[in-house]
Amino acid sequence: MKNYTHINDIDDINSWIKEAKALKKNPLKDIELGKNKTLGLLFFNSSLRTRLSTQKAALNLGMNPIVMNVSGDAWGIEFLDGTVMNGNTAEHIKEAAQVVSQYCDVIAVRAFPTLIEKDKDESELVLSSFVKYASVPIINMESATGHPLQGFTDAITISENATKKKPKVVLSWAPHIKALPHAVGNSFVQTMQKMDVEFVITNPEGYNLNPEITKDTPIYHNQKEALKDADFVYTKNWSSYDDYGKILKTDSDWMITNEKIGNAKFMHCLPVRRNLVVEDAVLDGENSLVIEQANNRTFAAQLVLKKILENG
Amino acid sequence: MKNYTHINDIDDINSWIKEAKALKKNPLKDIELGKNKTLGLLFFNSSLRTRLSTQKAALNLGMNPIVMNVSGDAWGIEFLDGTVMNGNTAEHIKEAAQVVSQYCDVIAVRAFPTLIEKDKDESELVLSSFVKYASVPIINMESATGHPLQGFTDAITISENATKKKPKVVLSWAPHIKALPHAVGNSFVQTMQKMDVEFVITNPEGYNLNPEITKDTPIYHNQKEALKDADFVYTKNWSSYDDYGKILKTDSDWMITNEKIGNAKFMHCLPVRRNLVVEDAVLDGENSLVIEQANNRTFAAQLVLKKILENG
Amino acid sequence: MKNYTHINDIDDINSWIKEAKALKKNPLKDIELGKNKTLGLLFFNSSLRTRLSTQKAALNLGMNPIVMNVSGDAWGIEFLDGTVMNGNTAEHIKEAAQVVSQYCDVIAVRAFPTLIEKDKDESELVLSSFVKYASVPIINMESATGHPLQGFTDAITISENATKKKPKVVLSWAPHIKALPHAVGNSFVQTMQKMDVEFVITNPEGYNLNPEITKDTPIYHNQKEALKDADFVYTKNWSSYDDYGKILKTDSDWMITNEKIGNAKFMHCLPVRRNLVVEDAVLDGENSLVIEQANNRTFAAQLVLKKILENG
Repeated sequence: MKNYTHINDIDDINSWIKEAKALKKNPLKDIELGKNKTLGLLFFNSSLRTRLSTQKAALNLGMNPIVMNVSGDAWGIEFLDGTVMNGNTAEHIKEAAQVVSQYCDVIAVRAFPTLIEKDKDESELVLSSFVKYASVPIINMESATGHPLQGFTDAITISENATKKKPKVVLSWAPHIKALPHAVGNSFVQTMQKMDVEFVITNPEGYNLNPEITKDTPIYHNQKEALKDADFVYTKNWSSYDDYGKILKTDSDWMITNEKIGNAKFMHCLPVRRNLVVEDAVLDGENSLVIEQANNRTFAAQLVLKKILENG
Repeated sequence: MKNYTHINDIDDINSWIKEAKALKKNPLKDIELGKNKTLGLLFFNSSLRTRLSTQKAALNLGMNPIVMNVSGDAWGIEFLDGTVMNGNTAEHIKEAAQVVSQYCDVIAVRAFPTLIEKDKDESELVLSSFVKYASVPIINMESATGHPLQGFTDAITISENATKKKPKVVLSWAPHIKALPHAVGNSFVQTMQKMDVEFVITNPEGYNLNPEITKDTPIYHNQKEALKDADFVYTKNWSSYDDYGKILKTDSDWMITNEKIGNAKFMHCLPVRRNLVVEDAVLDGENSLVIEQANNRTFAAQLVLKKILENG
Repeated sequence: MKNYTHINDIDDINSWIKEAKALKKNPLKDIELGKNKTLGLLFFNSSLRTRLSTQKAALNLGMNPIVMNVSGDAWGIEFLDGTVMNGNTAEHIKEAAQVVSQYCDVIAVRAFPTLIEKDKDESELVLSSFVKYASVPIINMESATGHPLQGFTDAITISENATKKKPKVVLSWAPHIKALPHAVGNSFVQTMQKMDVEFVITNPEGYNLNPEITKDTPIYHNQKEALKDADFVYTKNWSSYDDYGKILKTDSDWMITNEKIGNAKFMHCLPVRRNLVVEDAVLDGENSLVIEQANNRTFAAQLVLKKILENG
């Protein structure tokens, strides 16, 4: 594996899950693998879990992480070709990506969508520019349309907590006051499609994710019906895809409650807004897996880095 | 010792001072103790000495420091229970503290007071929330009401520079143009109360620190009288405690000068505003201990980390 | 060598180039030299290459880099003596430099000019204050009037790519929309003056660099004439020196094109604004050395750090 930019970079989800679980049991066993190698973490957007867990993963492999908030620490980057750069951007991605490749053995990038220009977001301009111009492997720390480190994390967490062979997993939209990206939802859908689970999505009308991603996964507009007999309820808000980036609905009736999910395990990528997306009782209850999901972020990132280093 | 959040976490100040002096002589002797362990430094507020000295202390113990400016690098954290999070905060401390605990073996936190809401500040909402929800040890890098790393540092510095068995130590308020916290003053008072020194406080009327902290320590409103025969003069501005967070006095007549302190050693936690808090001649003179205080910050933090790691 | 603040700190440019090339071939050979030593990188201004390459250089020597954005992470620093600090600055450089020296074995500083107050800029207030007050070696990561890490990098790059004994090197001014510092231009001029090259400068009238720096280096106001038979074309914008900090000319006729430079190698310190300073075809062509220049930043910084550590 050269880059890890999409869930499809996982060749065999079950063997990856097995390998990640092994790392989790013995996180320091490959501490020599990344010795004297540098991971550059470039943030175009805010981050807490991704920032810390990816650094931790690098440290577990003996790597030196170097963190940079691109806009705050440096300056605006130009992504369009052929531009006369007489505006607000001071460096072109062609140079920036090649230059960072001189100092870092692996580059991890976080860059959110505009949620305004659908085509631009779907072209994954930032991520794909790094892939195109960097001379070292690229890791996606959440891009415009995907968050494959989170998707793989969720696969590990479901595998660890499943009590039956083919559990029912429900991805449920939840309300939010801000227009949020589709990245986590997309990668979760793509991950579940690779796993041996019964998987359904539920969201209000107008909130269907990109049909090229959901494919033949059943989508219910009736949340109650979808949640029936669920073993795992994965909750996440996203803005409308059809009416791109818009908030169509802010009613609290889609908020996840203990009454709704019963004995199902509750999952969320975090950060989560309490009592807006999900009620306190769920997060504070014994069926919440959110902290274990956060913990597994380290081992997802660590396996990805390990595979990249072994390939390098 | 699990956490270091308050001067009272020091069980025996004299033995701690002795241990810190030993570390200072041989700072790298425990370089294996923290190997492959991570210290998360979370800053809700600005920092120079604390930021650098705590990292240096961690490095001296072989730990990996990970620094994060919470607001700038991530997002607003919610500290109140039961809130419907439809405002500016994106993650609740319950999740944030538990999540960071997945990646860091020890968490150090800096969070200043509001200086507006006395009750909130005195509840130490941020620090105590980390203590409550994190699953790893917490170190206070200056909270709303205390700065115990500074207090312990000052104990070391006084011990190193005392020329008599029971020196006279004076904590003197000084003018400032901004409303400053009580944390350094409080922790210095609590530290001196544990040491074998003659300790008095001097400040203008209206500027007495919390009486539950000063207890029976003498407070003089006449600075000249208090400074008489002082061996150490510790200077610090703080805003009013009674008229909470207010500036009642900005006159320069409380500024520390060489004429006032004579041969006494001068101490300040820094940063210090020259010719407002203290005149140049004092800071540039041979009786200033401020740089040595800054140096001792490393060994105070290092001993705290060492005790936490040995306990862990 | 104690400090590296100016190109003149290089005692013998040819032996330095030779040593840097050796480091480049075997970057990890001195990995024990900086063990348990700390490099503090203090940024008063934005940085990408300098930030990453200097960290990488430190890591190659086994050092621990600690990065700090001074204004963002801490507070305003006062540089003037005798000031009553009742304004926006919270700490004086006298304390700040001495304090950072307690935690860092070497301090690297970036501080750009005002481009308004010529005298202040030429006094190198920030850099020289660190040199004056710090008790550890100081490295210039670009100051008001010089960028000697870049200058030395450029010497390495020219040496690597020269195909004749005494190549012709042209420093050509180029247009820009912002008023830029003279630092890179100055250090490049001073570096070329030390090397065995035929060196000329070309810039529009009104844009001559400081004559105390250019000395008897020929300056052409006719770009075409200057570029004739060039082996290396180093391009950089700077604001006027005579009409200090002003933009006198924004016309695109000084932009570098393939037509202008023919088979000469193209150099630029980066970041570069495409199609304003230089056309795409040059940067994307095979005669561009800009990425190799960026790569050499690591080894320039590494040799400087090595010499400082070996001296320490």
